[in-house]
Amino acid sequence: MNAPRRLRDTRVTLSHGGGGRAMRDLIDSVFATAFQPQTAEDQARLSHPALSDPGARLALTTDSFVVTPLEFPGGDIGKLAICGTVNDLAVGGARPLWLSAAFIIEEGTEIDLLRRIVATMAQEAARAGVQIVTGDTKVVGRGAADGLFVTTTGVGVIPPGRNLAADLIRPGDVAIVNGVLGDHGATILAARGDLALSTDLVSDCQSLGHLMEAVIAAAPGTRAARDATRGGLASALNEMAAAAALGIEIDEDALPLRDEVRGMCEILGLDPLYLANEGTLVAFVPEAQAPAALAAMRARPEGRGAVAIGRAVAAHPGQVRMRTVFGGSRIVDMLVGEQLPRIC
Amino acid sequence: MNAPRRLRDTRVTLSHGGGGRAMRDLIDSVFATAFQPQTAEDQARLSHPALSDPGARLALTTDSFVVTPLEFPGGDIGKLAICGTVNDLAVGGARPLWLSAAFIIEEGTEIDLLRRIVATMAQEAARAGVQIVTGDTKVVGRGAADGLFVTTTGVGVIPPGRNLAADLIRPGDVAIVNGVLGDHGATILAARGDLALSTDLVSDCQSLGHLMEAVIAAAPGTRAARDATRGGLASALNEMAAAAALGIEIDEDALPLRDEVRGMCEILGLDPLYLANEGTLVAFVPEAQAPAALAAMRARPEGRGAVAIGRAVAAHPGQVRMRTVFGGSRIVDMLVGEQLPRIC
Repeated sequence: MNAPRRLRDTRVTLSHGGGGRAMRDLIDSVFATAFQPQTAEDQARLSHPALSDPGARLALTTDSFVVTPLEFPGGDIGKLAICGTVNDLAVGGARPLWLSAAFIIEEGTEIDLLRRIVATMAQEAARAGVQIVTGDTKVVGRGAADGLFVTTTGVGVIPPGRNLAADLIRPGDVAIVNGVLGDHGATILAARGDLALSTDLVSDCQSLGHLMEAVIAAAPGTRAARDATRGGLASALNEMAAAAALGIEIDEDALPLRDEVRGMCEILGLDPLYLANEGTLVAFVPEAQAPAALAAMRARPEGRGAVAIGRAVAAHPGQVRMRTVFGGSRIVDMLVGEQLPRIC
Repeated sequence: MNAPRRLRDTRVTLSHGGGGRAMRDLIDSVFATAFQPQTAEDQARLSHPALSDPGARLALTTDSFVVTPLEFPGGDIGKLAICGTVNDLAVGGARPLWLSAAFIIEEGTEIDLLRRIVATMAQEAARAGVQIVTGDTKVVGRGAADGLFVTTTGVGVIPPGRNLAADLIRPGDVAIVNGVLGDHGATILAARGDLALSTDLVSDCQSLGHLMEAVIAAAPGTRAARDATRGGLASALNEMAAAAALGIEIDEDALPLRDEVRGMCEILGLDPLYLANEGTLVAFVPEAQAPAALAAMRARPEGRGAVAIGRAVAAHPGQVRMRTVFGGSRIVDMLVGEQLPRIC
């Protein structure tokens, strides 16, 4: 009767990806116990009253995570996968509801590592108020993948009448970030160990769904938001400037940076504006609502360090400029090459 | 103003995954031209009248594809990714609507190969009547992945009142497959070239959404269906027998197999019942509706070879047995190890 059996293996083998009994055992023992899917069918079947609200829209977003190392101070690839996908939904104004998770596992990966990662995912999903409702596992031979890749896809619902988009930003709107910049990128860099850097940094990896709801409630005119992941704040702002066909001005003075991150960037010649974040968003709100948005952020742990960093301007459309601490101004361009790969 | 620029590179480099301008160029030049996303936001925003039908449910399914080789007779990893996800939705009774696609690309991958794969995906999506609405690209260093992995997630809608599930199968229900077995697995095996096998086989890789709708229209009592991918028909039937807590009996005589597949299996000691398929489903329908279901399948190109292969029985619950051509009976168990990895 195919009762669930104990998994005796300590490492993943190719047979765990073959579609047969070994795969069933791995799924039952590692994934199903953590995620508790509702059905034996290979699809989740979902309903939610918010979906049938007239004017409600469905939001769909996907991300693959390829971070190395798989575990790092402040999180692991699983936490990253949940937060990253929840945040992509949230910054677009969607309420995150359901996630799928697909795992590409390299032969030889420790099953205990998988268990830890899956447990983190279940925990972070609960914290963010989303359910992991379906998934997939594939196993590839040794050398064909780098330990573990996770792809999460998120489904959320955008309430009727809510519309956040970068092309709605207007000159004078204030740019607000919820906290310090660059912690995730700097943590991963230090965790790789190549540089013999010793720091107390931890990744900022966190879910921002509840924060975004608080901001929108306090500042209903909120125009748009982005999470500043790969490519950092600079890339997020450049994308928004291009989509809005407006200029963006930021103040170097106002940028929230830890001394440690600043110091690491100076030593290594990195620009913290391009360092990846995994729990940091930038939102544009009408000037009159900026104090309310800031207060709403600061009332939550994810937004305790919220500050206004600049504004949208009619001048230099499509371009981001920074007023430096020395009183000058420089262009903050899109990242051209790659600053640091495998960061998320 | 960040006007789209021509991509000059011929191979993917790490900078194409950095979140900056090179990534933008790759996405604009390769992905966006094929998939034509509706928005610059990092989420698709979707609405469909069927979603707000009272009693309609959302279906969500995800799959990573790691096939090697990436291109094979009858398809490529992109076609596989579209068909696989469409089919997971369809066999559960959902009408496929939207897909996300996430790409993990190994540094050094030819951009022309990516273009071909992405073009196949766009083509197959159009054929299946689904839209690819959002995506992601990550680049990993040489040796950190095996060329290209694609993860597709599908969203569909299950019309009110429709409920396909293996635990609804009843004794006497007829098992029907839509065509020959094992073509995909045998094709991939031959395409690897290690075995110096020369065949005219092509993968059966095809979308089954329209076929499933036709079957359900003709046989509204259809209980459940599965696509017989990894682990083949044997694994699909075993999963259904377990979920239904019923036995399943199939007739070896009735199994549709090409002579070439049969021959290849005999030479290599493989069992065609475990060979992967990518366009083959098995459906259980009440006996009285079996002729209508068969006729509906045969009226479509994807179902031209449809045949009844067996039935559900009250005896030996959870077990699949096959009446052999010699009059005996043998247990068709779940695949225990792995027969052939990296097949889908």
